[in-house]
Amino acid sequence: MDVVVVGSCNIDLVSYVPRLPAAGETILGSKFSQGFGGKGANPAVMAARLGAKTALISMVGEDSFGREYKLDLIKNNIDISHVGATSKAATGVAPIFVNESGENSIVVVKGANESLTVENLMEAKDLIQNSKILLCNLEIDPKVTLEALKMAKSFNIRSLFNMAPATTGLDEYFQYCDILVINESEAEIITGMKVPGVEEAKTAAESVLEKGCQVVIVTLGENGAVVMSKGDKEAVHVPTPKVQAVDTTGAGDAFCGSLAVFLATRPELGLQESVYRANKIAGITVQSPGTQTSYPQWKDLPPELFGGEKLLKDG
Amino acid sequence: MDVVVVGSCNIDLVSYVPRLPAAGETILGSKFSQGFGGKGANPAVMAARLGAKTALISMVGEDSFGREYKLDLIKNNIDISHVGATSKAATGVAPIFVNESGENSIVVVKGANESLTVENLMEAKDLIQNSKILLCNLEIDPKVTLEALKMAKSFNIRSLFNMAPATTGLDEYFQYCDILVINESEAEIITGMKVPGVEEAKTAAESVLEKGCQVVIVTLGENGAVVMSKGDKEAVHVPTPKVQAVDTTGAGDAFCGSLAVFLATRPELGLQESVYRANKIAGITVQSPGTQTSYPQWKDLPPELFGGEKLLKDG
Repeated sequence: MDVVVVGSCNIDLVSYVPRLPAAGETILGSKFSQGFGGKGANPAVMAARLGAKTALISMVGEDSFGREYKLDLIKNNIDISHVGATSKAATGVAPIFVNESGENSIVVVKGANESLTVENLMEAKDLIQNSKILLCNLEIDPKVTLEALKMAKSFNIRSLFNMAPATTGLDEYFQYCDILVINESEAEIITGMKVPGVEEAKTAAESVLEKGCQVVIVTLGENGAVVMSKGDKEAVHVPTPKVQAVDTTGAGDAFCGSLAVFLATRPELGLQESVYRANKIAGITVQSPGTQTSYPQWKDLPPELFGGEKLLKDG
Repeated sequence: MDVVVVGSCNIDLVSYVPRLPAAGETILGSKFSQGFGGKGANPAVMAARLGAKTALISMVGEDSFGREYKLDLIKNNIDISHVGATSKAATGVAPIFVNESGENSIVVVKGANESLTVENLMEAKDLIQNSKILLCNLEIDPKVTLEALKMAKSFNIRSLFNMAPATTGLDEYFQYCDILVINESEAEIITGMKVPGVEEAKTAAESVLEKGCQVVIVTLGENGAVVMSKGDKEAVHVPTPKVQAVDTTGAGDAFCGSLAVFLATRPELGLQESVYRANKIAGITVQSPGTQTSYPQWKDLPPELFGGEKLLKDG
């Protein structure tokens, strides 16, 4: 395997409504759509669509959503030998109301994702040991995420930890992870300082790096990202081309999945160039609606994204 | 057929949340459950569980929710020869957030239900002509509901029109329907007068009856119902035994389905006794959670509900 992801599968249940209903109220929505989401499956799908050999370690419910999700993962060429199905909880869902201004109100019900155990992870030991990079985040039992980071370290496998959804008290996690990916608000939660722009992100990166990980990447949306590795004198800003965003849902997951692919399969590119290319792909996903539906296949992307020529220009 | 229902199929998508999310917010829900609902399928399921030969005329989407719904109807012994599947829209859904106080916020996305046409109804002409009672309401294209009422009248079949969800401008509908079933708030919408109790419901029933239907029934929850037929001097209050309600969702549909069964299969009981028994069954459904999941099978009900002895005591 190139990329192994430990994380969640959620079915997105999206209703378009004129406004949010109040308690006790019934209102008519104009449209409904169902999609595949979750912070585990999303980057796995992105990685697989870029051509990487990808496996997912996850848990769905023994229900129709779970069966549909497994079929979708297979269609995306993802190894699901460690996607279990539990009768104890329903497949994770994310009911989402989108109002007329395009604002989302999201409920996440983790369900079966919380039934993924350290034992399940142990069963996937061989898979993890034979992969090039392990990607994980926090939409599952955080004990499982921590154990995944420890396993990767013990096998000398690179790990990419996306600290989302944001939470506090994760200092132990930083000691085991290689590459920590956080956005502005997650950087604020860790450091306690406001991160409104590039300069503050650099300061935050320096501060986070002291907590133990090897590399920290602060993603900044249309402003690109700030990258800093242990031993670097200072953080570096990696810009990204401006795009016209129509739906940013799942862009962070697309970035993580793409970055994992470049790090696993094209180590000669180096970190900053890999971050630049991953951000370019994330920028493409925000120009189409939906989460996984907006993720491109490698063959539909500009070939230079996979070429040997450096795309990130100095300065 | 004893009972033919023309109406909607919705999948209920119920999330239990600490509070409702604001625009732009993501919150964690504690539980998710999926159920079968919709104001067409609900009374059909109730009627079938009471042992009546029941058919449903409805439209689902060509999707997994639609396939699941058809299987559920078959399991409930409902004739689905006129439940179509369209590729034009998704199966109707009702995403519901239940907060910690037990209050519901409901969004209804009609989807495929709006694709049920007058032509679909025409295709079911033989079915309708050979039934004893037709039940319909307003969770579909209202033109189809009106046509269903006209067809029933032309075939001399009794019709039961449940004016829900409430709307205005339906005077033409009343001229074709036999039995109009409305609750307090629907009675207020038709008459423009407040209906806080039994006496006001009687006045409202008299006023509604003048609009053209043969019978009007105003359901009053724990206060039972008020019944009035054309030619009656005044409306009659039919009380119902007190129960401990845990979830009133779908109780109105259970009442309509049960009433249709008694009217179709036990005409000797008379209207008031039928209303009393239907309310008794609705009162049983509110003592269990869920919509269709709370509807009992006839064999689990007290036998006297199907016996010849009058249960409604005078005065």
